[in-house]
This record gives sequence, structure tokens and C-alpha cells, in this order.
Amino acid sequence: MAALERPLSWCNLRLIVEYDGTDFQGWQSQNRGRTVQDELSRALSTLLGKTVVPIASGRTDAGTHALAQVVHIKTSGSMSMHHLRRGLNGLLPKDISILKVESVPADFHSRYDASGKRYRYRIITDKTALHRSQVWSCYRVLELQPMRAAAAAFVGKHRFGAFCKQDPPPEHFECFVREAGIEAVDREIVFEIEANRFLRHMVRIMVGTLVEIGSGRRPAGDIQVLLESGDRALAGPTAPARGLCLVRVSYL
Amino acid sequence: MAALERPLSWCNLRLIVEYDGTDFQGWQSQNRGRTVQDELSRALSTLLGKTVVPIASGRTDAGTHALAQVVHIKTSGSMSMHHLRRGLNGLLPKDISILKVESVPADFHSRYDASGKRYRYRIITDKTALHRSQVWSCYRVLELQPMRAAAAAFVGKHRFGAFCKQDPPPEHFECFVREAGIEAVDREIVFEIEANRFLRHMVRIMVGTLVEIGSGRRPAGDIQVLLESGDRALAGPTAPARGLCLVRVSYL
Repeated sequence: MAALERPLSWCNLRLIVEYDGTDFQGWQSQNRGRTVQDELSRALSTLLGKTVVPIASGRTDAGTHALAQVVHIKTSGSMSMHHLRRGLNGLLPKDISILKVESVPADFHSRYDASGKRYRYRIITDKTALHRSQVWSCYRVLELQPMRAAAAAFVGKHRFGAFCKQDPPPEHFECFVREAGIEAVDREIVFEIEANRFLRHMVRIMVGTLVEIGSGRRPAGDIQVLLESGDRALAGPTAPARGLCLVRVSYL
Repeated sequence: MAALERPLSWCNLRLIVEYDGTDFQGWQSQNRGRTVQDELSRALSTLLGKTVVPIASGRTDAGTHALAQVVHIKTSGSMSMHHLRRGLNGLLPKDISILKVESVPADFHSRYDASGKRYRYRIITDKTALHRSQVWSCYRVLELQPMRAAAAAFVGKHRFGAFCKQDPPPEHFECFVREAGIEAVDREIVFEIEANRFLRHMVRIMVGTLVEIGSGRRPAGDIQVLLESGDRALAGPTAPARGLCLVRVSYL
């Protein structure tokens, strides 16, 4: 299969990247700490023999995971996709894996062209040994029904100022939430949400607020009030990063 | 709820225990290395104020996980089940969690009374970052159909000498496999098997052999030949422990 693949030259590559966020200071390169972007940049530069800075669809927080982050690299070459993927997976550490490499048109941009993203947040109301790096152990009795009603209230076009870390403030707060729901899966409670864009800490603040609703500290109707207020101080706390996973990035 | 629970006295407790086997030298206490039995014994002894040695339904290998290992402790006390579970989970390290504690009759024995066990083995034919501690990354092209036919050949009452680490040899090789199957789940290939008893390394040698069949190095019909031979040297290699998980222990 690989032998038949013609090593056509390319000028822009799209990578689908899975990572375990536990031991990373998030996606974005920074002064201190290990980041996914730095690790990927190092492996790409080694493999291609030149400095390459990969651009992702968006940042993820320290501790947050990705099942399928989308990344592009604008550089030219002619190594086959098969060999690129194999080479990268060999060079990268255990907690990053490349699911796919494909040649895309020169103007493809992983962030600007993204039309939507889907996140999953996993909660367990107990201790868990096997899934502890990917689930928030939240020791409360949670009622599903009010959490479901509250999650449904996120759907639609709203200004999410109350569900956003405002320092520094984003350009604007409007997001269109296409889908938001709560499901019980085995011993876990899973929140899934899809929107055209997400603000900083948005899903984690939503989850912190949903848990207050599920434990009876707030009524489900609070979501509407919070959306209208735009006041971060009125929403719940930011849930831990470990429960969050970027599941999918969509392109038109 | 807990306040209403009467602290009746008990003389034998059954614990359902989940553990991440990655950083353990298996269940069984030994001269060197960290074991689940030692950690559990330490937490129980602290909580109950006396030396307690927990007995499991069977050993698990270093690196092998358990979703629901069954353990009993023959000792008397009167602490409520709720407080016992909460106390143990607080004392135990992150990679062990107690799902349930219940009072059982004095003659209950987790190993002698077990009527069956179910194991799951997860294989991926690629690199995986997020599930790497619970899946075997086996870099081969695997065909599901012959693997399914081979797995089905394990079902029934057979002598599993070919699928057993024979040093030291077990008392006898006969096991009754009630169910054995292969499923494709997302990017993974999952082998599940239920039997009245398992021999040492049995599931891992089965998986090593199934992978040889799936990659075309052996015909599916080999399983029958191997079962009849009873010769360990003729079967495939022992698959890595990390892919294996004890899913359930049954009692009549």
C-alpha cells in the first residue's frame, strides 16, 4: 500500500493529533513547561530538516486532552503521507499520536477555517482508579434531570460572557451552540457540547455551573439568568481541566 | 443515608476493587515492588487497627488492570459499610479504588467460591496516546474474520496446556470457556472471554496467538491443533499485560 503511494509534492499538510494532556502545559508553546506544540514542532523539524511551527485549531488548557485536534503546517516537501505519519509517531513521545496526515490546499488554515468544535467533559461522583486522568471525580450526589434541562438552555446563539475567563477579554462573546447534552454512561455523567466557537474556560465553567445545579445548589433556570447577565462572577467555579477532551473539529 | 445505616457487626467483608495495574507488580504481595494486596492490606490495617490480609479471587499479572476484582477479608468489626468504603478510598493511593463494601456470610471465600471470571483484552494496530496504558499497540494489519473464527474455537471444555505458563505447572489444565469473542470497537479490536477458571498467562497467550492468526501467519484452524497438543511452545507469544483487564468475577 505504502509502496504504491506516489510521493507527490505538497505545500500544506493537515494533521489529526491525539494527545493525553496530563503532562502538558496545554497546546500552546510558552516560556516554561512541556507543550504539545513544542513537541510536535521538534519532531516535524527533525523529520523535515527545517524549522516548522504547527498551528492548531485552537489552544487547549494544561491537562486537557484531545482525541482529534486539527493542526496544519505550511511548508513544502515530498515525503509520502505514510512515511510522514510513521516518522512522526516514532519521534513523538508516548502521549502524542498522529492519527492522520494529509495534503491540503495552500490556503487551508486549521483555526480560521474551522466551522465548529465538539468537546466532551466526563464527571464521576466517586473515586476512579482506571480513568482518573480523564474524568473529574466530583464527590456529590448529582441529579441528572435538572442538569439536562440546564444543558439544553445553552443551545442557540448567546453571549457567553458569564462562561468565560475574561482576562484578557475576547473580541466578542457570541457563540452559536448547536448541541449540548448530558448522558449517563456506565458510572459516569458525560457532558457533550458542539458550537461554532468556544471562549476561554467556557466548557469548564459550564460544567462547574451544571454541577451546582445537579447538586441542588442552584435551579436549572439559572443558566438563562447567567447568559443574560454576562457576569463571570455569578456563574459556578471552573471545573478541573482533566475531565475535558476536544473530540472533533469541523470544517465546511 | 449514611446516618440511617445501622453499624451492625460483621465477620467477613466482600470488597469490589478497581485498579490501574500500570504501576503495580500485580495483585499478590511479594518481596519486591508495589502490589495491590500490600496497599490494600496497609489501608485496611490502618482503618481497622489490626493486621488484615485481603484475599482476592485470583492474582493479576504486573501491569494488568481490574475493573472489578473481588476481595474478601475475614475479620470482625462494626464500622458501617459506608464509612469503611469512604475511609479506604481516602487512605488508598489514586490507582486503587473501592467500588463496594458489603458484609457477607462467614464462609464466603473470594477465590474458592468464584464460579467464573471475565477478562477483556484491548488491541490497537496503531499508536494511541490517550489509551496507551490499557491497550496493546500491535503494529500489524489484522483481519477480524479469522480472529473471530479462532476465538470461537476456544469455547467449550478443553485442556489449555498450550495456553498456559507451565512453570510451575497448574494442578490441571481443564477450563470451561463459556464465551469468547472478538469485536471492533472504535479504533480497537477487543477480545472478551468468560470461563470458569483461567490458567497463568492464559488470556495473554490466547491473544498472542490470535494476533498471529489475524496477521495471516497461522490459519484459524490452529487453535484446535494447539488445544489437542497441549504444547506451550507451539502457541503464539504472550501478549503484553497492559492490554488485559479483569472485568467481572461471578459467584453462583
